[in-house]
Amino acid sequence: MSGAPAVAALDWGTTRLRAWLLDGAGKVLAERRGDDGLITAREKGFATVLEGHLAAMGAPEALPVIICGMAGSRQGWIEAPYVTVPSPIGAILAGAARIEGQRRDIRIVPGLAQRLADAPDVMRGEETQLAGAGLPAKGRHLVCMPGTHSKWVAVEDGAVAGFGTWPTGELFSVLASHSILKHSLGEHPAAVGADNPFFHQWCERALGEGGDVTSKLFAIRAAGLLQDLKSDEAAACLSGLLIGGEIASAKRRYGASEAPVVLIASGALVALYGAALGLAGLAFRVVDADEAVRAGLVEAARENGMIGGAA
Amino acid sequence: MSGAPAVAALDWGTTRLRAWLLDGAGKVLAERRGDDGLITAREKGFATVLEGHLAAMGAPEALPVIICGMAGSRQGWIEAPYVTVPSPIGAILAGAARIEGQRRDIRIVPGLAQRLADAPDVMRGEETQLAGAGLPAKGRHLVCMPGTHSKWVAVEDGAVAGFGTWPTGELFSVLASHSILKHSLGEHPAAVGADNPFFHQWCERALGEGGDVTSKLFAIRAAGLLQDLKSDEAAACLSGLLIGGEIASAKRRYGASEAPVVLIASGALVALYGAALGLAGLAFRVVDADEAVRAGLVEAARENGMIGGAA
Repeated sequence: MSGAPAVAALDWGTTRLRAWLLDGAGKVLAERRGDDGLITAREKGFATVLEGHLAAMGAPEALPVIICGMAGSRQGWIEAPYVTVPSPIGAILAGAARIEGQRRDIRIVPGLAQRLADAPDVMRGEETQLAGAGLPAKGRHLVCMPGTHSKWVAVEDGAVAGFGTWPTGELFSVLASHSILKHSLGEHPAAVGADNPFFHQWCERALGEGGDVTSKLFAIRAAGLLQDLKSDEAAACLSGLLIGGEIASAKRRYGASEAPVVLIASGALVALYGAALGLAGLAFRVVDADEAVRAGLVEAARENGMIGGAA
Repeated sequence: MSGAPAVAALDWGTTRLRAWLLDGAGKVLAERRGDDGLITAREKGFATVLEGHLAAMGAPEALPVIICGMAGSRQGWIEAPYVTVPSPIGAILAGAARIEGQRRDIRIVPGLAQRLADAPDVMRGEETQLAGAGLPAKGRHLVCMPGTHSKWVAVEDGAVAGFGTWPTGELFSVLASHSILKHSLGEHPAAVGADNPFFHQWCERALGEGGDVTSKLFAIRAAGLLQDLKSDEAAACLSGLLIGGEIASAKRRYGASEAPVVLIASGALVALYGAALGLAGLAFRVVDADEAVRAGLVEAARENGMIGGAA
């Protein structure tokens, strides 16, 4: 570790945790990844899990800690109440909930709630990525944050106007493991490459159907019976169908924006969503999800007076 | 048992089996239901399972047996090769596959295959319901057969023009058991009534989205967090969303027909699909699925010369 850490930052989800020691400019001085997400931490104790990771990174005793993600849910360490949208992005971070009775200053960023009668929605963790993505202060921007529960956010002049959730990653794994498609995909579906022609073909089919995915699921099974589709090809079909369906649906809901879609992602999802956005005729630019969440956490620490002003 | 049976008829699916002794007019003389579908029969032997049910119903030794369903698939007793659509409905039944080496005349009705490059599909069992539904010989008719894998069939002048599969029943059970919605629906989701206001509301929402279901799944979870949705209400939401989505999608694919939709169903699905079709503005008439499959099996026995001409 070189340099003095200004804050410890955690993205603390349901099943996983990532922790960093950061300097005041957001530079990474140390990093830890663990499987001790919310579910494990509820058993072991949140403070115990946190201090274990901090000690392993050599964090000073008084270092403040800023956290985002499901650790702030009702089932988490403490509930950091949702901020209701529409809301300026800056105002979200300023309301971090403080955990009392700790020797450190530990705070959790609130999630967002969309309290619409016909489109209720929530997020926890993605609001911090959003805040750290460096979005322009003016204009309308559509943001895509793909994952287990993909989030699409409409941002207008620096405020969250509305958002939606597409459980694309979860649908893939649930259908691959528990539906009739398990016979098509096999026990260990291969990772899908963004250049796979089956991914492209089924993505385009889904894009032509405005988000209607369920009418095409069984066709993957039937293609195995009638067209000799192989298991790795079937996985590519399902991935293309679900990602294409998500993009078609989000495009229908939010309309095309003049500015390119901001794709906040990392790893294999960058290429898959990039290819699918291209097939949908949507321009996009990529923001690295890991960098975004760290930048958002530093910003939250600053907004809450845990570290000094702009570096 | 009163009267002499003309044929034993079986609807032999993946997990269940139903068997009847029928007279030449299709009247039920005896009935059996069992859990020994394809999966069990592959272990015990198809002939053993069949003869057990026939003996329990007191079937004569030489009584012919006509079968439809997954027992005729590649994983079944013998494969009854698919008939490719478009095909006249009568021509489907005439091609039953005979099982050799049995003391009885035992035949299995073939399934249907739609060999379209961009919409491959298959059915086994529903073709027999379709044949037994008493559809008019002329005109265009849209048929809905709801279930684990709902089938919609476009029939033109007595021929199957095309069909599609919506895995609505399977999606409900997979999502209720294995997705984040299990927290919303609870361990034992209550049966959903067709008069449930949540069923209606979410059905209408789905109908307004042209078959886009995935954009609304997470909203059921969010409604539990933000709107205090109860578990039996969540089950009604999911049921309404999936059934409404199926109908919206099928309506978009096949267009509205002048004739009422023929709903071939039995049990609770009659009321649920009836309510949903009504919300979609589609006129419909109900054909009992059990009666239809029996009538189709008798017709198949006749077409294959296993019993005498029209009663």
